[in-house]
Amino acid sequence: MLPAHSLHSEQCIAWVAMRKHGIISPFWLEGDWGRAFTMNNDQLYPRHNDFSERHIGPSEDEKLLMLQALGLRSIDELIEGSVPSSIRSGLELNIDKPLGEHELLERAKELGRQNKVWRSYIGMGYYNCRIPTTILRNMFENPGWTTPYTPYQPEVAQGRLESLLNYQTMVCDFTGLDIANASLLDEGTAAAEAMALAYRHVKNRKFYMDTRCHPQTKSVVNTRAGVMGIEVIEEKYENMDFSNRDFCGVLFQYPDTNGDIHDFTALAQTARDNGALVIAATDLLALTILKPPGEFGCDMAVGTSQRLGVPLGYGGPHAAFFAVKDRFKRLIPGRMVGVTRDARGNEALRLALQTREQHIRRDRATSNICTAQALLANIAAMYCVYHGPHGLKYIGTRVHHAALMLAAGVEDCGHAVQNNLFYDTIKVLPKEGVDVESRAKLKEINLRYFEDGTIGVSVDETTEEADLNDLLWVFGSKRSVRDIADSMGETLNGDISNSPFYRTSQYLTNQVFNTYQSETNIVRYMKLLENKDVGLVHSMIPLGSCTMKLNSTTEMMPCSFPEFTDIHPFAPPEQAKGYATMLQELEDDLCEVTGYDKISLQPNSGAQGEYAGLRTIAAYLDSIGEVQRSVCLIPESAHGTNPASAQMAGMKIQPIKVTKEGAVDMKHLSDMAEKYSETLAALMITYPSTHGVFDEDIIEICDLIHHHGGQVYLDGANMNAQVGICRPGHFGSDVSHLNLHKTFCIPHGGGGPGMGPIGVKEHLAPFLPTHPILKPGADSQSFGCVSAAPYGSSAILPISWAYIKMMGAKGLRHSSEIAILNANYMSKRLEGYYKTLYLNKNGFCAHEFIIDCRPYKKTAKIEVADIAKRLQDFGFHAPTMSWPVSGTLMVEPTESEDKRELDRFCDALITIRKEIQDIEEGRMDIKVNPLKMAPHPQSVIATDSWDRPYSREQGAYPAPFVRPETKFWPTVGRIDDIYGDQNLVCSCPPMEAYQSPYLSDDEVPSASRIQV
Amino acid sequence: MLPAHSLHSEQCIAWVAMRKHGIISPFWLEGDWGRAFTMNNDQLYPRHNDFSERHIGPSEDEKLLMLQALGLRSIDELIEGSVPSSIRSGLELNIDKPLGEHELLERAKELGRQNKVWRSYIGMGYYNCRIPTTILRNMFENPGWTTPYTPYQPEVAQGRLESLLNYQTMVCDFTGLDIANASLLDEGTAAAEAMALAYRHVKNRKFYMDTRCHPQTKSVVNTRAGVMGIEVIEEKYENMDFSNRDFCGVLFQYPDTNGDIHDFTALAQTARDNGALVIAATDLLALTILKPPGEFGCDMAVGTSQRLGVPLGYGGPHAAFFAVKDRFKRLIPGRMVGVTRDARGNEALRLALQTREQHIRRDRATSNICTAQALLANIAAMYCVYHGPHGLKYIGTRVHHAALMLAAGVEDCGHAVQNNLFYDTIKVLPKEGVDVESRAKLKEINLRYFEDGTIGVSVDETTEEADLNDLLWVFGSKRSVRDIADSMGETLNGDISNSPFYRTSQYLTNQVFNTYQSETNIVRYMKLLENKDVGLVHSMIPLGSCTMKLNSTTEMMPCSFPEFTDIHPFAPPEQAKGYATMLQELEDDLCEVTGYDKISLQPNSGAQGEYAGLRTIAAYLDSIGEVQRSVCLIPESAHGTNPASAQMAGMKIQPIKVTKEGAVDMKHLSDMAEKYSETLAALMITYPSTHGVFDEDIIEICDLIHHHGGQVYLDGANMNAQVGICRPGHFGSDVSHLNLHKTFCIPHGGGGPGMGPIGVKEHLAPFLPTHPILKPGADSQSFGCVSAAPYGSSAILPISWAYIKMMGAKGLRHSSEIAILNANYMSKRLEGYYKTLYLNKNGFCAHEFIIDCRPYKKTAKIEVADIAKRLQDFGFHAPTMSWPVSGTLMVEPTESEDKRELDRFCDALITIRKEIQDIEEGRMDIKVNPLKMAPHPQSVIATDSWDRPYSREQGAYPAPFVRPETKFWPTVGRIDDIYGDQNLVCSCPPMEAYQSPYLSDDEVPSASRIQV
Repeated sequence: MLPAHSLHSEQCIAWVAMRKHGIISPFWLEGDWGRAFTMNNDQLYPRHNDFSERHIGPSEDEKLLMLQALGLRSIDELIEGSVPSSIRSGLELNIDKPLGEHELLERAKELGRQNKVWRSYIGMGYYNCRIPTTILRNMFENPGWTTPYTPYQPEVAQGRLESLLNYQTMVCDFTGLDIANASLLDEGTAAAEAMALAYRHVKNRKFYMDTRCHPQTKSVVNTRAGVMGIEVIEEKYENMDFSNRDFCGVLFQYPDTNGDIHDFTALAQTARDNGALVIAATDLLALTILKPPGEFGCDMAVGTSQRLGVPLGYGGPHAAFFAVKDRFKRLIPGRMVGVTRDARGNEALRLALQTREQHIRRDRATSNICTAQALLANIAAMYCVYHGPHGLKYIGTRVHHAALMLAAGVEDCGHAVQNNLFYDTIKVLPKEGVDVESRAKLKEINLRYFEDGTIGVSVDETTEEADLNDLLWVFGSKRSVRDIADSMGETLNGDISNSPFYRTSQYLTNQVFNTYQSETNIVRYMKLLENKDVGLVHSMIPLGSCTMKLNSTTEMMPCSFPEFTDIHPFAPPEQAKGYATMLQELEDDLCEVTGYDKISLQPNSGAQGEYAGLRTIAAYLDSIGEVQRSVCLIPESAHGTNPASAQMAGMKIQPIKVTKEGAVDMKHLSDMAEKYSETLAALMITYPSTHGVFDEDIIEICDLIHHHGGQVYLDGANMNAQVGICRPGHFGSDVSHLNLHKTFCIPHGGGGPGMGPIGVKEHLAPFLPTHPILKPGADSQSFGCVSAAPYGSSAILPISWAYIKMMGAKGLRHSSEIAILNANYMSKRLEGYYKTLYLNKNGFCAHEFIIDCRPYKKTAKIEVADIAKRLQDFGFHAPTMSWPVSGTLMVEPTESEDKRELDRFCDALITIRKEIQDIEEGRMDIKVNPLKMAPHPQSVIATDSWDRPYSREQGAYPAPFVRPETKFWPTVGRIDDIYGDQNLVCSCPPMEAYQSPYLSDDEVPSASRIQV
Repeated sequence: MLPAHSLHSEQCIAWVAMRKHGIISPFWLEGDWGRAFTMNNDQLYPRHNDFSERHIGPSEDEKLLMLQALGLRSIDELIEGSVPSSIRSGLELNIDKPLGEHELLERAKELGRQNKVWRSYIGMGYYNCRIPTTILRNMFENPGWTTPYTPYQPEVAQGRLESLLNYQTMVCDFTGLDIANASLLDEGTAAAEAMALAYRHVKNRKFYMDTRCHPQTKSVVNTRAGVMGIEVIEEKYENMDFSNRDFCGVLFQYPDTNGDIHDFTALAQTARDNGALVIAATDLLALTILKPPGEFGCDMAVGTSQRLGVPLGYGGPHAAFFAVKDRFKRLIPGRMVGVTRDARGNEALRLALQTREQHIRRDRATSNICTAQALLANIAAMYCVYHGPHGLKYIGTRVHHAALMLAAGVEDCGHAVQNNLFYDTIKVLPKEGVDVESRAKLKEINLRYFEDGTIGVSVDETTEEADLNDLLWVFGSKRSVRDIADSMGETLNGDISNSPFYRTSQYLTNQVFNTYQSETNIVRYMKLLENKDVGLVHSMIPLGSCTMKLNSTTEMMPCSFPEFTDIHPFAPPEQAKGYATMLQELEDDLCEVTGYDKISLQPNSGAQGEYAGLRTIAAYLDSIGEVQRSVCLIPESAHGTNPASAQMAGMKIQPIKVTKEGAVDMKHLSDMAEKYSETLAALMITYPSTHGVFDEDIIEICDLIHHHGGQVYLDGANMNAQVGICRPGHFGSDVSHLNLHKTFCIPHGGGGPGMGPIGVKEHLAPFLPTHPILKPGADSQSFGCVSAAPYGSSAILPISWAYIKMMGAKGLRHSSEIAILNANYMSKRLEGYYKTLYLNKNGFCAHEFIIDCRPYKKTAKIEVADIAKRLQDFGFHAPTMSWPVSGTLMVEPTESEDKRELDRFCDALITIRKEIQDIEEGRMDIKVNPLKMAPHPQSVIATDSWDRPYSREQGAYPAPFVRPETKFWPTVGRIDDIYGDQNLVCSCPPMEAYQSPYLSDDEVPSASRIQV
């Protein structure tokens, strides 16, 4: 047995009777047993479950075996050997005692009750909707859908990819444009990305934005424009003159934030005639009956697909869409699914044109997009698949009718509806003497109150007749909506169907949108897609730098509580007190974990966090008169998003060399800091390094940067090695983002959502992001706004909050310890087969490690991709490939995997190494071998044709633990990326391509075929 | 387009603007459009979704195509042709207007709020517990686990079978007995079954039952004993004398209902010495620290596994366990999973010794068990897998400690604890002057109040220190439990660890209970098992007579509401008002649907419903002085449970012949009714008949039986063809059971839970089941009690309630219509390939049909089982096999399947017919062919060795819709039933059998193996 102190020494059960009985729970190790009755509460009658022991994979026995394999006696010894003593914090985190799972849920419910769910008619891009319960349960609440990684290994991701293709098809159809991506973060950033695309394409520095865009969109666009050198002109379009041909683009909202549907045809024409690109921010539900932007000359359309089945969630997560004309397809930001073929020529899907993506383009990036909102896009897509075109048109029409009836009723009682043509939103100038706001409060109804006294009302899918009656009452009407409808004529004010904007074109004609209207069918479709994709429900996903750890059910449960899902992001703060408390607690805990003084929860992704952090630094530097400081030093080993974000934030990038040991080249850093001493803005550094090692020099590095007047940005991607062990804010960093979807348990969702809050030291706090709706504090000197919603994706923050609350100080620290133990154990087990490239002076890695696969290219013509694909045959998702060092694999097991799973993964790699040896030594063909031909889907294995020089068994069942009865199969052969990129198809095949042989009537067999 | 009236004529959208826009939702057909503003509410601004259109599979277009294939113009025409006009009800069901899914959930929440969840310490076999959230979400709320059928096709059910084997192993380990079954309905019926086993084995007519058994157990046992001619002696065991050797068995509760742990060793010895079998009703959690019954001479143990992770649920559903010594293994009632081998000799699981089962033994049945509680047994098993032996011992000990501390505190303040040795329950004689009951109500705490003024308190897994403090306060203590514990010595009153009853033997030493303690691991294990089993999430399961229809998410959701799950069955009625309303509404709706006057919701399964119905009839006959009436006429085509239930109910069975057209032989019936005119008690008849046809003579049959003084029991298994079309209570039946898990959407749970309420006409109502805790009305002349809980499995009744509420009158009727349409369409499509054995005079079947497979035995040596197994290769679960006619398949598609799925299934059968033809015509080997060798698991297909005269493709992908990327695979080859029954193994293999090659330390490779 290990010395108890090295594991959980204080977690002992002390009641004397339990000791006498010899009851040792697996969750408590025998430790320093005291006399019970002098000890504390927990020890008298301990709680049931220590959640941390459910979260952490290895058992105590396994920990012992792994330590033994490493020649260590305790975990403390491991930490002493792997983390520099200079940065280790001797102090336990000062956070609340851990809650049990049940207690956590009780507390979450209590906070939920502090939120008040009023009916919201605020609109502004956020609408109530009905998520079909079967989609809620079978997608959002199903780890089969929530736990997969981003579909970079398409052979084991065809399910999600198909659903995302449905999403793209749906967006194209509704917008009337040719190409759509697989989602962006929110409508505001989508608009900013559209501006960036226009600027990149047209090069002019002026950008027109209609004043009647949503205010949060305007904020995000203006924030982004500033450092790009783009001048945003806000004006009513009627007053615009483009004849100077100095605009790169125009952006308008359709319908606009006031509800009006303007005829933007002339604007679009004029702008395009003068070289600018035309962008419509629009609403997919409105487009069920409204003429699509693509039909009146728009080049791009952006917006949110929230209202297609995704709850308000106090602002997110939701999927934004982005659609363009065909000619811009290679400029589109974000991920895009495309059709290609696999090794045998069969149709297959994968992410297309990946070289466009920001993390690949690094400092040539044109977008601040690294992640997407795959899970939410998939929910929206499935909502459309379930309703089909008829159902969606029905819903879309019904919403419009509600608005028409409401407008008639409001006018009927003497108010002035200011809209001529509208979809779901009206803006009302109330008549004197009716205190609409007070009456609305009586009914617990939220409306949009403009500063000029007008009032906005947006109806939606959930609005029922009783709601309309309440709204009429709020406006002082004495009549019911039925009564109003009785007196409406055939020609209705605002009616789209009587306007030139009534949609005549079809949409969603593909088979997939016309097949799954029964619940039986949609359930089977969701299950079919789910089962094509490898997720954490199947096996470990050891993605270096991505920290694919347990996403526990208890953490996820509050995300479905209506008290959290049904709050509008711009609801009055007094209705969101539960959120406020939870977010404050999360901020406090994150500050304690990181050593920072203040957190901003606004950034929606790691890349957005980097951008926000750098803008915060720049604003601070400006405030102290150091406006000339704009150089950002970035080690060559950095995440690609680092240089991308820096250049988006208007900084100049100076790369810093890295030693062959993987450390920052201190000489080069020192030289460059010296060289740019006057203009140095920041250093961006990842810690532990992207090579998986705790750099000994980190304090020295931070001091050096500060000495030269710069700020230190520490990329929090590898925070999982540090929590409870060391704190960036204490050893010299000024700002970090925290990937809550890595270290803090938000599931990756198959490619999003993520969250990238930033923590800063005190001096940077005044410069953190603000938001146009929730006004900042008086001392704010914020640089602006990076997300459409004040707290980013609020609705998933309960996950990270719950994780910290349940783990407690010891659990969090122990997680980091086991993450490091697991990585070192794997590295050790692979010793003799693969070389771990970077270890510290004591021979230890941090929580991840890089194995070298480059030699096999020479010895056996085996590329790292061959190894990655071969791993699929073992049921595993490949580790991070060729990053940060080309030709390598970076393995991050996380603390949630037990030794058995680590061993299986190591066995897979060892088996692969032996297969390589067979090639090296001539026993296996150099071209046709299990690696080059990997992966092996059933379409290859379970057929008669087999002409390979190895057996089917070797192809499909390469290790004893890969069994026919439990194997997870890739569903296609190796993807041909180039073919797809050269022949880009990014939406569903047309109806006829999938014509079923069973549909036709004449298929009913005649009795003559076989006589019984 | 069909004439609108034949489908949903009134479901039209009438608002004029919608008509003008040409918006026709897929959920409303164009009908009789009126001027909007004179019409009703729904038509003004219709609700969003018609749930019935989600529930019913075929689209309007598909319905049209199917009608065309049948040569019909309308659904009305089909119903006129298939259902006799004499019984068709012209009236629409008089039930509430249908609720939308969202409205239903609101209403369920509202009812939930009417339930008051007080803390319960009532005990009596029902205890609070913590269901791990990951098990709740990934099993109970996962259709992958809830929708499979009973595992009669083991090749596509290995997941559940493994979990049930875990359950059996767990029960054997805890009870110390050799063999356990895979669950029974509840503890009461398990005890009654144990008595029946003892009687069957020993033959003596006396049975001893200790007075301190739970009262509901005593009621169920006494009820069952009556008609079996067994005399139950209730007495304290100390007073018993067995020396006459006239007892068949003894039953005692251990610990007893008062909490006491008696030393039953001497009783057991004496009873056994005198030839009686010894049965302990026991508690699995207590057995974590209590000497198991098997170690002191018990032959059998029964009880409930509810507290292992299954919520109270107002009484159920929960799994009861039943364990016996090895020598009784062939007498054990209910389903039992056993290990066997498949066609290639690999280990596999299946239901063992099926010939024991009641539906097979028919009138020789010795048990009233047809279904089980598979889902709940699996949840309990997974709870044990997740906690492991150490975790369970920890929980078990902690509960005991709570009771010890409570007892000390209660005594400390002057009350008398009446127990000497106890586990979790104490019985207190309160001192004068403390009004415990009032104080408990102040704290919203339920205790057990005995009639003699003593008070029972049972603590459980959820009891926290704060709860103990509240309990002490309730008893008037001024001290805290910590304070009490401080003053407790080392020798504690009641402490099991100081007694000879402290358990020393080990349990759950198998690998499966020592591997999955992390959440990551348990999630993967649950997913692994889930994905081995075919369910409704994959494909249709056309089980004739079992009605595998959609189990919608919205129906299921209220079953997880804490307001429904956390109510003790014996909580005061004023705390269950929400349940009361819901159950009353369900009763009212079921009365309206069936035409009966009164419903009893007590029976937990169809078989139990039959038993209860027949006992009700007998009690009625007794009450009118017709005690001699005991003959039950049963057509030969009846479900096997019919004769089984009749003989269990003490009736004599006279089979009635069936014509070759499948109808009751009226001549024979008439003769037998005449013959037994004086003694005729009842006719049991299934309608539509088990041959899938609406019998024209049903009214005549009922009249005949009534004429001879008998009652008509109409088996409700086929109610799905009748709902909204005809009503048994109106055309002559006196009583029916209703399989809520068939017609009314409770999922089959992979083999339970089910519910079998009975409906009766007015004259039978006073004789319906009663319950010892919830006292019956003054007019009750009940025969007794059939379930431990008053309303059976109350917690799943919301499913059926929700289904009816959401479907409404039209939806329910249309379901029946489409069930009939689907069956007739399939029968028509198979025409020319397979002969449908029974059709009515117009050529129509009802909602199911039987195809004849007997000819192929002669022509090709193909048995019906070969066809059933071959269907697995197409991804389908076989229809009902060889029942009611040997050598046939009975297909029931239900209304939830769309035409595409029906066509796929027909294509599979047609393809199989062609394969048979290949054998017939010599193109395929008569022994080695795809049918005889079916199913084809991956272990057969995806290997190199292949020596069959047909291709792998033909084996694995026999139809175009069976694709490698989407195929559902059986995980084992064809099961060898006989081998397993001859070599019975019914628990998990021991630890060493599964020793992983990756566990051992020396597996860490040395660098010498391969030099990199």
